[in-house]
Amino acid sequence: MSAKEETVLGTFDPGVSKVELLRRFRDGEHADMRDHGRAILSRPEFSPVTGLPMEQHRARALAQAKALAEKGLTTVSFPEGYGGSHDVGGSIAAFEMIAYGDLSTWVKCGVHFGLVRGAILYLGTEKHHERYLRGIATIELPGCIVMTEAGHGSNVQGLRTTATYDVATGEFVIDTPDPSATKDFIGNSARDGRIGIVFARLIVGDVDHGVHALAVELRDQHGQVTEGITIEDCGEKLGLNGVDNGRITFDRLRVPRDALLDRYAQVSPDGEYTSAIENPNQRFFTMIGILINGRVSITGAGIRASESALTIAVRYGLARRQFGRPGGEEELLLDYITHQRRLLPALAGSYALHFAQEALVAEFHRAFTEADYPEADRRRFETLAAGLKVAASWHAGATIQACRECCGGAGYIAANRFAALKADTDPFTTFEGDNTVLLQLVAKSLLTGYKDQFGELDPLGMVAFAAGQLYETLMERTAVRAFVGRVVDELATTIRDEDVDRLDRAYQLGLLRWREEHQTAALARRLKRGVDGGSDPYGVFTDCQDQAVILAKAHIDRVVLEAFDVAIARCEDEAVKDTLNRLCDLHALHTIERDRAWFLEHGRMSAPRAKAITRAVNRLCRQVREDAGMLVEAFGIPENLLGAPIAPAPS
Amino acid sequence: MSAKEETVLGTFDPGVSKVELLRRFRDGEHADMRDHGRAILSRPEFSPVTGLPMEQHRARALAQAKALAEKGLTTVSFPEGYGGSHDVGGSIAAFEMIAYGDLSTWVKCGVHFGLVRGAILYLGTEKHHERYLRGIATIELPGCIVMTEAGHGSNVQGLRTTATYDVATGEFVIDTPDPSATKDFIGNSARDGRIGIVFARLIVGDVDHGVHALAVELRDQHGQVTEGITIEDCGEKLGLNGVDNGRITFDRLRVPRDALLDRYAQVSPDGEYTSAIENPNQRFFTMIGILINGRVSITGAGIRASESALTIAVRYGLARRQFGRPGGEEELLLDYITHQRRLLPALAGSYALHFAQEALVAEFHRAFTEADYPEADRRRFETLAAGLKVAASWHAGATIQACRECCGGAGYIAANRFAALKADTDPFTTFEGDNTVLLQLVAKSLLTGYKDQFGELDPLGMVAFAAGQLYETLMERTAVRAFVGRVVDELATTIRDEDVDRLDRAYQLGLLRWREEHQTAALARRLKRGVDGGSDPYGVFTDCQDQAVILAKAHIDRVVLEAFDVAIARCEDEAVKDTLNRLCDLHALHTIERDRAWFLEHGRMSAPRAKAITRAVNRLCRQVREDAGMLVEAFGIPENLLGAPIAPAPS
Repeated sequence: MSAKEETVLGTFDPGVSKVELLRRFRDGEHADMRDHGRAILSRPEFSPVTGLPMEQHRARALAQAKALAEKGLTTVSFPEGYGGSHDVGGSIAAFEMIAYGDLSTWVKCGVHFGLVRGAILYLGTEKHHERYLRGIATIELPGCIVMTEAGHGSNVQGLRTTATYDVATGEFVIDTPDPSATKDFIGNSARDGRIGIVFARLIVGDVDHGVHALAVELRDQHGQVTEGITIEDCGEKLGLNGVDNGRITFDRLRVPRDALLDRYAQVSPDGEYTSAIENPNQRFFTMIGILINGRVSITGAGIRASESALTIAVRYGLARRQFGRPGGEEELLLDYITHQRRLLPALAGSYALHFAQEALVAEFHRAFTEADYPEADRRRFETLAAGLKVAASWHAGATIQACRECCGGAGYIAANRFAALKADTDPFTTFEGDNTVLLQLVAKSLLTGYKDQFGELDPLGMVAFAAGQLYETLMERTAVRAFVGRVVDELATTIRDEDVDRLDRAYQLGLLRWREEHQTAALARRLKRGVDGGSDPYGVFTDCQDQAVILAKAHIDRVVLEAFDVAIARCEDEAVKDTLNRLCDLHALHTIERDRAWFLEHGRMSAPRAKAITRAVNRLCRQVREDAGMLVEAFGIPENLLGAPIAPAPS
Repeated sequence: MSAKEETVLGTFDPGVSKVELLRRFRDGEHADMRDHGRAILSRPEFSPVTGLPMEQHRARALAQAKALAEKGLTTVSFPEGYGGSHDVGGSIAAFEMIAYGDLSTWVKCGVHFGLVRGAILYLGTEKHHERYLRGIATIELPGCIVMTEAGHGSNVQGLRTTATYDVATGEFVIDTPDPSATKDFIGNSARDGRIGIVFARLIVGDVDHGVHALAVELRDQHGQVTEGITIEDCGEKLGLNGVDNGRITFDRLRVPRDALLDRYAQVSPDGEYTSAIENPNQRFFTMIGILINGRVSITGAGIRASESALTIAVRYGLARRQFGRPGGEEELLLDYITHQRRLLPALAGSYALHFAQEALVAEFHRAFTEADYPEADRRRFETLAAGLKVAASWHAGATIQACRECCGGAGYIAANRFAALKADTDPFTTFEGDNTVLLQLVAKSLLTGYKDQFGELDPLGMVAFAAGQLYETLMERTAVRAFVGRVVDELATTIRDEDVDRLDRAYQLGLLRWREEHQTAALARRLKRGVDGGSDPYGVFTDCQDQAVILAKAHIDRVVLEAFDVAIARCEDEAVKDTLNRLCDLHALHTIERDRAWFLEHGRMSAPRAKAITRAVNRLCRQVREDAGMLVEAFGIPENLLGAPIAPAPS
């Protein structure tokens, strides 16, 4: 490993192998950070273990988090002066390397160094930074985000825990009004958490100002839980058992006035509430917005976990033989088209998402480092973060499952890693926003994205209004019609395979763009019709949820393919570029094939063309199979983290 | 529970509720056995527990297996005189009830009481029955199937362990020639197994007669492993950690001549090999065929596990509220179309598979109880068993995952059961035959099913030959053309929703039948073209694997829908029948919607029709939602087995 490592870390060398060129290209802007992460995680204490009892697993995750903090891998996004270099993008790259290891450690780090740090830094002010950030940087002061309630998961705006200002004592009184307001599934809280970022409705002088965040001491330095707080252990989970999730109730807990993280809203000693953001909705979404860190990080971890699974399954498929000609040698699993079909489009998908994530992380860096980051960009960025989180989490689940099945019985043995990969990535689909709820959010954002100004309308009214506007706009746009003309399919009775092979990226992108535009207009039309017919906006939008899901998915498919295409254009090595272009073709045509019913239904594809695309995907699978080994080795996953006995490093 | 139980067990009563009528109808022929199973499994010792260390879990599974044997639930398929009543069908029904509980117990019982009993009973002769069956019935003599090797999973015919006859001593010498012939993943072997059914190549006087089975003592009554045998523990697995899987190697182990299970092949003391089945292939498949028990049982367990998940998720969806009109009460999750779309077609699928399994079990009973069960029926039965195992295992995986996601964070807590349901059903897709390999088998069987006689051709040559025959036959069949005419779709530009609602079962079945016939002919044509072109049959079939998969899936879809339809026709209660018909419509149209690209590509459906079917599925979801609570309660899963705190019994 070490000799190999040196080559990778070395300077550019024309004699360097294609797999290493590809790895460097993939590593991109944060290559140094990724290599730094690889070097640290290559230490044997990070190698996977199986069968740890829960309490030992929790202790191990905390110990690993401390070790990573010591090596500086978890603190790069902290401000200078607090142990970091405010490298927001680099921080995500570092976290992605951690995600090749034990995902319990990754979650523990993500909650603490990502979300808790972010809340203190962006919702708090100088006094909070001074009080907490150093302890957070060393994880001497382990933290947790006390947001979700038993009765309110995805609907954060509906939280019911209260923080009532008592002007007599200058304190907030935090209280759990009833069992459904119990804080639930709170990561890092059952065993370790000392500082909790508590989200509660701020009540000042009988006025409910909506959900705000307060920094609350949950335990003292001896681990003693603060009086007025009860913490119950959520116990064993499907996975991530190194993370200590808990349930928290508050019984009229009194905290000082300066516990309020008061960057966006302040309460004066005599009980005057002030905020520079007048619209309560906008205030809420601004505060919640800082937690976007979590979504960006989950996207990265989902992609990395899918890469771990693919590396194991592809290596196994290139070594394992089964069945064959009577009397002859048995065939390699990866030479079967059925095997290729299960693994290679998934591999292409992981590459596509990698480059989409690269673009997202660059935008994330801008959003949190540029002082005058435009509001319109922020909205686009938030939509992208939500959409990619959905895509990466479902992709990870499906890919890991396919990889596990492609390894047969061996895939079921815990030492071969799929047990942990499957169980630990499972919550990605529902945490930091349930995927189905996030798809609605993406769709709403696409509709409202056409409006420049947020008015006084509530979000739902705004959606309906925007849909009306959008409908008019789209119907007038000649661009749409011109575009339709360009991708309209021949009514030929036969399509020769060569016709499909010659299809360029513009055709692939054109189809996906056309679908997104069409779905946007169709949804806008349905919303407009509903609202014009006198129905309330909530009911109308709810009725259209299935259309909204189709639109959101269409949007995500398009942005992911664009990101892959844009990244390839940057590649300067022709051989690497060819490989990536073939992989991108497979990704694009497989995406189109998967949803070809939609294109057929909407007259954008003829039946012969659809069949030809299926044949083209088969041919591309045969071609990509030749690169498969190189494509997984280019992930550069440290051997010790991979760990699976069925998938030793190729000799 | 007990009052409810009494009503269910009581005689037919016109005042009985619809849910109970539905349960009785579902319970069918083996209703008494199912109720017997429910009563036993309602005892608190069968309630799920989480977080058990592996060794405790293994001990618990064995203890549960013993308790179930004592109550007679696992021995009904044993012959009279050996503790049973030879009720083969009833036995599967009993095992299905066990599958509502801990699936480790179910696997342990399945391997031991199902497969080991079956091997002794059907591959052995009187002496083996006398020697082993009583100890197996009480599980005093725990057994395992020692078949799979590290190098050979799905390709059983390629096993390499040898059993060489030594004429000098009248013994077989069992040996593991190299590490890839190590027996691997052998359930019940690491801790408990005393009797092993060892599959090895039988070598008599230098002639390799192919794979045969021998009964071998692995451990003595004190648990001491026999000299010449090494058993290693496979350790922790993704799930089913109550089952002790092991790796076994044989070092020239000597066993007496009568260890050979000699019903289909005998070796005389002086080393003469005899068998009534001359063709070695046919002999192999006859011997392996008795293990079909496993596939039938997995199908049942997959369906039951999906029912457990659906009961939890539907109950949760009918209690949990999230989001809603501003100021109004929040909405029930199950009132959202996106939620309905995720759960209700899955619920319909579980019902459809239940009735298909009912038909399979009836055939299974015939196959193992009728002395003159026709060979053609056996082939059809084996195809059905393979196909339904594939369908049920993938259905279980997808359904449990959807249910888990529909319960959000709560679904991730182990106490809510999805952790175990997911992990424990995961191997269903690869054990007892990898699903993708089984689909090939189904397709081959459909091609060769047209031939009446097995000739001297090897299986692959036979497939190619049969494909040629079939091609001619199909091309001549006017029935196909007439049929095509009946389902050909209108070229209308609009399809009114009423047109789809009026579509009858004949239309739904017609589409699925047409697809199967078309795919059969298409595959036959491709095979014929390949073989005519001079390619070898193996290569030709391998190239067509993707088409074979489509054919096999089309076949399974058709037989499942037919089974559901046939079952409904038997229902005498009009209200129950209406409910089931609506559910069957949802299942049928959802199946067609899922694969509508195929129908569009093959000109069997117009684009407006396809869109109308999507709308119809939405409408059916709305309707079935009203019955959803009743439909899951009719599964009749004992409350203590369900166990999930988030899904208490409806009041």
